[in-house]
Amino acid sequence: MLYKRNPQLNKNGELIHLLSTEGLPRDILTHILNTADNFVSVNDREVKKVPLLRGKSVFNLFFENSTRTRTTFEIAAKRLSADVFNLDIARSSTAKGETLLDTIDNLSAMAADIFVVRHSESGAPYLIAQHVAPHVHVVNAGDGRHAHPTQGLLDMYTIRHYKKDFSNLTVAIVGDVLHSRVARSDIHALTTLGCAEVRVVGPRTLVPADLSHMGVRVFYTLEEGIQGCDVVITLRLQNERMSGALLPSSQEYFKSFGLTPEKLRLAKPDAIVMHPGPINRGVEIDSAVVDGPQAVILPQVTFGIAVRMAVMSIVAGNEA
Amino acid sequence: MLYKRNPQLNKNGELIHLLSTEGLPRDILTHILNTADNFVSVNDREVKKVPLLRGKSVFNLFFENSTRTRTTFEIAAKRLSADVFNLDIARSSTAKGETLLDTIDNLSAMAADIFVVRHSESGAPYLIAQHVAPHVHVVNAGDGRHAHPTQGLLDMYTIRHYKKDFSNLTVAIVGDVLHSRVARSDIHALTTLGCAEVRVVGPRTLVPADLSHMGVRVFYTLEEGIQGCDVVITLRLQNERMSGALLPSSQEYFKSFGLTPEKLRLAKPDAIVMHPGPINRGVEIDSAVVDGPQAVILPQVTFGIAVRMAVMSIVAGNEA
Amino acid sequence: MLYKRNPQLNKNGELIHLLSTEGLPRDILTHILNTADNFVSVNDREVKKVPLLRGKSVFNLFFENSTRTRTTFEIAAKRLSADVFNLDIARSSTAKGETLLDTIDNLSAMAADIFVVRHSESGAPYLIAQHVAPHVHVVNAGDGRHAHPTQGLLDMYTIRHYKKDFSNLTVAIVGDVLHSRVARSDIHALTTLGCAEVRVVGPRTLVPADLSHMGVRVFYTLEEGIQGCDVVITLRLQNERMSGALLPSSQEYFKSFGLTPEKLRLAKPDAIVMHPGPINRGVEIDSAVVDGPQAVILPQVTFGIAVRMAVMSIVAGNEA
Repeated sequence: MLYKRNPQLNKNGELIHLLSTEGLPRDILTHILNTADNFVSVNDREVKKVPLLRGKSVFNLFFENSTRTRTTFEIAAKRLSADVFNLDIARSSTAKGETLLDTIDNLSAMAADIFVVRHSESGAPYLIAQHVAPHVHVVNAGDGRHAHPTQGLLDMYTIRHYKKDFSNLTVAIVGDVLHSRVARSDIHALTTLGCAEVRVVGPRTLVPADLSHMGVRVFYTLEEGIQGCDVVITLRLQNERMSGALLPSSQEYFKSFGLTPEKLRLAKPDAIVMHPGPINRGVEIDSAVVDGPQAVILPQVTFGIAVRMAVMSIVAGNEA
Repeated sequence: MLYKRNPQLNKNGELIHLLSTEGLPRDILTHILNTADNFVSVNDREVKKVPLLRGKSVFNLFFENSTRTRTTFEIAAKRLSADVFNLDIARSSTAKGETLLDTIDNLSAMAADIFVVRHSESGAPYLIAQHVAPHVHVVNAGDGRHAHPTQGLLDMYTIRHYKKDFSNLTVAIVGDVLHSRVARSDIHALTTLGCAEVRVVGPRTLVPADLSHMGVRVFYTLEEGIQGCDVVITLRLQNERMSGALLPSSQEYFKSFGLTPEKLRLAKPDAIVMHPGPINRGVEIDSAVVDGPQAVILPQVTFGIAVRMAVMSIVAGNEA
Repeated sequence: MLYKRNPQLNKNGELIHLLSTEGLPRDILTHILNTADNFVSVNDREVKKVPLLRGKSVFNLFFENSTRTRTTFEIAAKRLSADVFNLDIARSSTAKGETLLDTIDNLSAMAADIFVVRHSESGAPYLIAQHVAPHVHVVNAGDGRHAHPTQGLLDMYTIRHYKKDFSNLTVAIVGDVLHSRVARSDIHALTTLGCAEVRVVGPRTLVPADLSHMGVRVFYTLEEGIQGCDVVITLRLQNERMSGALLPSSQEYFKSFGLTPEKLRLAKPDAIVMHPGPINRGVEIDSAVVDGPQAVILPQVTFGIAVRMAVMSIVAGNEA
């Protein structure tokens, strides 16, 4: 940890920022998942809104573009009745030579309540959280290779929904673990929630050798790694990786690590298949698996809205 | 028709998607226009809002840019109290290699209610409507050269507002009919509503020869085509057409088909002049006509908001 | 003045557009500042919203990009419960050859209530205000080098907040006065509000020689200009000026006109330091001053939201 006291918690141990699943105690993780339970039903209602954040201002600060993730936070915030402001930050004041912290101070002075931050630099949301006034809460929507905690939490929600209890589960995370903030957030959350066995599976060039200290087992073939699993989390292969120095080609990758129905048969018969999206069909996963009965990829998306509603209402101190 | 059953209607014959004015029965068209009547007054009120779509999520999916049209849908949705999400779809997941239908599935999983779709490919909104879950409704905001049904409907609303009854009207559509989805949507709606005579007028290069099967009369000079008309719909000449293979130049076009006060005198004295906007003054229409007493171009815009409110409230099953 | 009657006021002398601080009577300026007082407390509340503009439509028409300023207006409008529409005007119909006034007519026909206009051409908001229907109100968010009246008003609010009375104050405006619409708006407002002495301070290349007719004193060194001041308004040095014909370099500029703690000591001990943002640290102002006890730059931002809420509610005739 970079900091002595966990900057995500206040003195009473309550969540005030969500920056990483690392270092969050189990009861906080469970509280988020339980709160999300209430919001799943809101999204099924005729009127999909609750007034918990009415009159609050949520700023989407996406220093790195991601229309999909930004939209999920915008939906979550509006269903909590917040006002949402999408800042085209790439075209704005930081481009005019203003420092990041001056930009943050300015937006705080406009009476912001929540900053949702995505940044290509690992640690940027921490820097912002340490700097803001006490009335402002920071939610990390992905920073560099470091963390993507709401994705990690929605993955936990999905696993708990289908498998109930973590204590007997074997979960395999397959693919480009080296560059994946999703993998890192999943591993920390799974470990804290008491998952029996966490595996990472991928080619040597994409799986860090020193992962064993995180309490995971490393596998270099999909056939071994997937054996007897309850949950398979397939990671997206970034386009820039497909013909880079780390991989021969996307076809080669698919041959070795693409999740096909045949390979999935090595996992438990009731294993579920997850993916953070967007999917590259025929690269990291076969279309027959995406569209097959074991995939829970679209429920992940649905649960993601509820989890983000939970996180924002908890950090703002207005829970369901 | 591409499909056996009209994909716009459910088994009870109710409108669930608006994809085209083609194939819609007369009572559906009339129902939309009557519903829009109620909303015209909402737009005049001090508080321009009704709660019909409160808590609903409307997604603007503009695969082809159109700030104007997107804004009219955004206004209509917000005046119905919906939450509106504008997706910068060109920068988003489809750009990351995700398929169109995977994008649609993802957005549906976020509990969308209405997709407003503009796409450069004819038929894209049909593909989406066939694919979505039953709780999602699709409104076509323009697809390729195929259809622009809300423009067609607002044109019908405008004509009915000024002329009351279609059964004695002669309507001339002037200009680049070949490339115009507006023309196609107008022709289908006018025919269904029992318009006495529909004419298309333009140069041979821009008027399809086989239009007679659509029940229209074709004219190759404006002087003949406009003779005795009650309504003149002037089409926008796309910039890319102005110096292409199909036209010598915009000046030449104006000389032959530009609507001037002199030429307008050949129509009935109380003829109205319409245009879908944005206008090229001095290309397809003379400024004196745009600013003259017979133009109803700005009322078209006003009625367009009400018509879009009507369409969205009807497909979502929450009518006024 | 370009116009005989002040186009900002109706026949009863009430504010219907805010185009410039020039020509506005003192009681109007004071009324705006007093109204803003009420809104400052709204921004501190748990629920930061009042229903004054519920069901009204505010259009942000930024012909010149400014994410920061657009956001402040969006926040102000949403806290008044208005619906806000951000038009990506650079990509829209004006780009398709439509005239500015046709664009304005179209948006008016959508039942707009307020246009917030930023334009690189001086006078564009005047042109629009003269053209719109009586139900539409125009707020200038910056036009060319001409005016930035809401910035001028928030500066007045800030000065009044800290110094109470204008009649004994000496205010120095330091920097690129020549290109600054903020300076112009400040000078007019300060003069009308009875400020004892207004000074402009800067290099000869950036301070217009004929400013004396505006009732200001001109100084060409910071040491002289700042002497005994109550308020120092530091202007942003535009990037394009830093290595242009008018200035040797930004380092040279900082040496002569950069506001350092040492130079600030020449002003009164309780002088306040203001800046319209975004700041160039180490160019027009030293970091130690920005972060020091005399800077009120962040309170300016906070007051700016309240002032914009005041302006919009007043022109729309729905005051607090």
